[in-house]
Amino acid sequence: MIKKSVFSITLLSLPFVSSLNAFAEQSQSQIDKGDTAWMIVSTALVMLMTVPGLALFYGGLVKKKDVLNTIAMSFVSYCIVSFLWIVYGYSLSFSDDIGGIIGYLDKAFLKGVKIESLQGTIPEVLFSMFQLTFAAITVALVSGAYIERIRFSAWILFSILWMSFVYVPVAHWVWGGGFLAKMGALDFAGGTVVHVNAGIAALVGVLMLGKRKNTMLIPNNLTLVSIGTALLWFGWFGFNAGSAASSNAVAAQAFINTNTAAAVAALAWMLTEWIITKKPTVLGIASGIIAGLVAITPAAGFVNITGSVIIGAIAGVICYFSVTAMKPKLGYDDALDVFGIHGLAGIMGAILTGVFADPSVNEAGKGLLYGNAKQVLIQLAAVGVTMLYTAIMTCVIFLIIRLFMKIRVHEEDEIIGLDSSAHGEKAYNL
Amino acid sequence: MIKKSVFSITLLSLPFVSSLNAFAEQSQSQIDKGDTAWMIVSTALVMLMTVPGLALFYGGLVKKKDVLNTIAMSFVSYCIVSFLWIVYGYSLSFSDDIGGIIGYLDKAFLKGVKIESLQGTIPEVLFSMFQLTFAAITVALVSGAYIERIRFSAWILFSILWMSFVYVPVAHWVWGGGFLAKMGALDFAGGTVVHVNAGIAALVGVLMLGKRKNTMLIPNNLTLVSIGTALLWFGWFGFNAGSAASSNAVAAQAFINTNTAAAVAALAWMLTEWIITKKPTVLGIASGIIAGLVAITPAAGFVNITGSVIIGAIAGVICYFSVTAMKPKLGYDDALDVFGIHGLAGIMGAILTGVFADPSVNEAGKGLLYGNAKQVLIQLAAVGVTMLYTAIMTCVIFLIIRLFMKIRVHEEDEIIGLDSSAHGEKAYNL
Amino acid sequence: MIKKSVFSITLLSLPFVSSLNAFAEQSQSQIDKGDTAWMIVSTALVMLMTVPGLALFYGGLVKKKDVLNTIAMSFVSYCIVSFLWIVYGYSLSFSDDIGGIIGYLDKAFLKGVKIESLQGTIPEVLFSMFQLTFAAITVALVSGAYIERIRFSAWILFSILWMSFVYVPVAHWVWGGGFLAKMGALDFAGGTVVHVNAGIAALVGVLMLGKRKNTMLIPNNLTLVSIGTALLWFGWFGFNAGSAASSNAVAAQAFINTNTAAAVAALAWMLTEWIITKKPTVLGIASGIIAGLVAITPAAGFVNITGSVIIGAIAGVICYFSVTAMKPKLGYDDALDVFGIHGLAGIMGAILTGVFADPSVNEAGKGLLYGNAKQVLIQLAAVGVTMLYTAIMTCVIFLIIRLFMKIRVHEEDEIIGLDSSAHGEKAYNL
Repeated sequence: MIKKSVFSITLLSLPFVSSLNAFAEQSQSQIDKGDTAWMIVSTALVMLMTVPGLALFYGGLVKKKDVLNTIAMSFVSYCIVSFLWIVYGYSLSFSDDIGGIIGYLDKAFLKGVKIESLQGTIPEVLFSMFQLTFAAITVALVSGAYIERIRFSAWILFSILWMSFVYVPVAHWVWGGGFLAKMGALDFAGGTVVHVNAGIAALVGVLMLGKRKNTMLIPNNLTLVSIGTALLWFGWFGFNAGSAASSNAVAAQAFINTNTAAAVAALAWMLTEWIITKKPTVLGIASGIIAGLVAITPAAGFVNITGSVIIGAIAGVICYFSVTAMKPKLGYDDALDVFGIHGLAGIMGAILTGVFADPSVNEAGKGLLYGNAKQVLIQLAAVGVTMLYTAIMTCVIFLIIRLFMKIRVHEEDEIIGLDSSAHGEKAYNL
Repeated sequence: MIKKSVFSITLLSLPFVSSLNAFAEQSQSQIDKGDTAWMIVSTALVMLMTVPGLALFYGGLVKKKDVLNTIAMSFVSYCIVSFLWIVYGYSLSFSDDIGGIIGYLDKAFLKGVKIESLQGTIPEVLFSMFQLTFAAITVALVSGAYIERIRFSAWILFSILWMSFVYVPVAHWVWGGGFLAKMGALDFAGGTVVHVNAGIAALVGVLMLGKRKNTMLIPNNLTLVSIGTALLWFGWFGFNAGSAASSNAVAAQAFINTNTAAAVAALAWMLTEWIITKKPTVLGIASGIIAGLVAITPAAGFVNITGSVIIGAIAGVICYFSVTAMKPKLGYDDALDVFGIHGLAGIMGAILTGVFADPSVNEAGKGLLYGNAKQVLIQLAAVGVTMLYTAIMTCVIFLIIRLFMKIRVHEEDEIIGLDSSAHGEKAYNL
Repeated sequence: MIKKSVFSITLLSLPFVSSLNAFAEQSQSQIDKGDTAWMIVSTALVMLMTVPGLALFYGGLVKKKDVLNTIAMSFVSYCIVSFLWIVYGYSLSFSDDIGGIIGYLDKAFLKGVKIESLQGTIPEVLFSMFQLTFAAITVALVSGAYIERIRFSAWILFSILWMSFVYVPVAHWVWGGGFLAKMGALDFAGGTVVHVNAGIAALVGVLMLGKRKNTMLIPNNLTLVSIGTALLWFGWFGFNAGSAASSNAVAAQAFINTNTAAAVAALAWMLTEWIITKKPTVLGIASGIIAGLVAITPAAGFVNITGSVIIGAIAGVICYFSVTAMKPKLGYDDALDVFGIHGLAGIMGAILTGVFADPSVNEAGKGLLYGNAKQVLIQLAAVGVTMLYTAIMTCVIFLIIRLFMKIRVHEEDEIIGLDSSAHGEKAYNL
């Protein structure tokens, strides 16, 4: 049994069994201070992605009359999820599995998550906090599609319902010992759970919500977009490298893969746009960065550096066309391209993880290129199940909210802007 | 003696005696690389709270003619404290105790803080740098009350005197082995030392300074307030979880408590405001976050998750009324609510720490709910002593500064704005 | 041989041979989780210096019509270097030495950098990523001199060539086992490799480029400059303390030295400006911070706290005069003072490292004050060689680019601004 424990550590970071792990033979449940240091920092980094990273990325892109409302959507989602996660989210996602579908409620209010409980080599309370930040950003991501027209109270209700009935079960399926985990789906840091999930909810939601009266993109402040993009990138190191749950070589590989895919996707988007429109925009560079980051997310700790280059390059080009060609053609009003970037790059990344997963990087994943064609099918199944579930449930959630309130703001409120109508504030007095 | 050393480590993070601590039995003074990694990062995070966190939070809230002056106050305080802390601040606060009142001057210019000196399991030079960042933010916090009317030179003199004669002794009393420490006061990360201290100095100072000619709140840029709030929150993880001085489970508990209290306080403030004014403002959400962060500060490593929910909820509601009802009624011009938020939430958090401190989280603290009613009295005494001392000394410092210079700017300079009159600059050329 | 390995670790962080290092005697190649945690974080911090730190520092200082172009230059350089570094940059810089001049190409595409490869006590893949961030910021730093007139495509070509033919060899000479390393030059975190290098390239480039039509400094947004400065400072802790390559006491000393020099230089610049112009500007405080950070960079892990105070004070005063007196007198159009601050403070810091290096802080460095006058000469030689090489090569690179394209934008594009002409965007729609 002791051997088995050492062996499972070995699987993750072979052959980096640190000297501390060697002691694990004597006692299985010991905290590793180095792992804990890195995971505390990772958690803070993922928090920073939502507040203020995503809030600024989205906030800078909207019209000047809707800045604060957009920022408030990210902030309030983060706060709501922070509260509900400790109340029941963590328990339902990560407590013992019930039939592959959901966890028990025994850890509600973190009951039983004692100061001495461990998850691997880190305190369980830290693990629950790390997971909290993932739940929060996933909800907040969706907001970028709905902005400039959804009522603030409807968004709050959506956040509560969608976290509870969509995020929590999907997280359980993939990471909490649920049926997708048992099926062998690879999702290193949340391509399916976070990005496919949010992207599909975005698409379904905008179809239910309808178009804004003015769908033009008039970014009030591209310097905020630059800050937001950079903080998302910075925080993504915690998201992806933190998903190794250890300060080991797999974390380091996930880090450099993350950086590489983001950089390559930005260059790919920029060059594509340059060739087609003659103007490489800053918004294009920023969008390319996000596309690359999303696409590498499921693959980060599984692929080698060449895999990350290819995944980044494809993400940059595909997302460019999804945003500039597909969206106008199909006509849905996904305001800030949550489906076009997070959804598509998420799907693509999840599938390519099944192609490029290199067992010499991480024994836990073996892709098509290394002789395991079945992995691609498993990835497709996991993506398909998530898409289907999310699409249906998001639809249901919208219908439920409609029972209680109008989801869209009044027409005149949309015209004068949501900052004034919903919050009674103005972003700038310059 | 060796046993005693292990025992004290055990008190802090029982039962997470890591394998490294096990070696401490063989040699008492050994660096722990994991603890050191986390504490280096914590220190950087607390630095970020002042520059640019607080500078942006305050800078975004002022009139557009006073932005740079407000930012400069935070920056210059950080620089002054950085210098004076190594000259004498650290030594007076943390060198050997003289009668419970102050430390010796033998570590002036970090003399004797050798490269091999340890404080617990981390280098002493790192411990001194960590403490520096606390001193700096405490001084900078006060500035939010005085802005839009205090002379820049008077603020610099105030920073020097107040750090030397208020922060340094109070830090010694609570953390440096002084009389409040001996009395058994609990202050995990600085509720009394930082927030009560700064809050009272703010209140006393504005009474000495007088009101601004225009006391209206016309925030020039609420996007800056959003960034500042988020960076304060992010940095506060270093402030609170870093105060465990180790990458252990107490740090993790402090982290999640910090996040919970901030989120719950933001929701509590927002809902209260929504009910009363019908408009949940972004400024309200931001203010609630700060109120929750302040209130949980003394309690972060002592209370369980339920304690952090209750402390956050109370902080959000109380501070809402202090800012919207009490201040207008009493009429003092605490420009950015340093007393109303930091002072009151600090006092409340310090007292509630005496109520909710849960020995199963941290053996070092046991509150009223766990049978130790006396702790509340100790907390009240510590808060009372700090309030009294700070109030008197801040008053004396203002009187001393008046001997040397006018403290307020000329009336016409206040009207044209301090950016132009004091710095010859304009924040924006848009 | 085992003894030798332990000895070299001892040199770096004596006498903090942690309990983990003690195990190194049994097995040389073991990861240290604490060191790895800190180095992952350091790497993220240095990344943050370029995107968005430097992008905002530069972006806030330019005219409002050139904001996005300036930001794009930092972002695109970061992306390009990220890609080329893994393709050949890392290998040429850090693979086995060829005659003291350059490394082999055998690690192109990180070939042979296996998941189990170590560099010291951290994964080699992490080491290569850490070094990547240094290469990226060095290239991006140069852009501050060329802004408001260089073509975006010419800047991209410059980034590629300059990284390949200037940064890579110089990094090899100093850190990759090249001839300057063998000569005994001390450069803790990149005074020569990063700042002298970028500063000279800036000066030579602006002489080749010619002046802008309007050389007035009209900062569009000094709040962005404040954020940028603060993020540079924050990230610099990763840059300097991370250069210890371990979470040990040398890292902690480098951290506090970095903070001290920045703070003292800011105060020195502010006081000098205050005496001379009667107005202490926020831009002056920010510039002083950067000057101090640059000057302490080569010295950070070698000098004691008194050394950092003196280096900071000198940097603040010298750079003030270089920017306000020397530049106007000599008439070169170094738009954002890359030579005046990074070049001069870099040269000064490199030389003063040879004066103040204190062997009781770090046995690896012994300066003039501790009886080793020769070190100053070695420092002068290293700086001189770098200056000469960079000057010639930057000149050659400009001549090469001219063969392929016009380097400056059209006159009318310069007048209407590069945001519109090169990117078809506007930074603000307020």
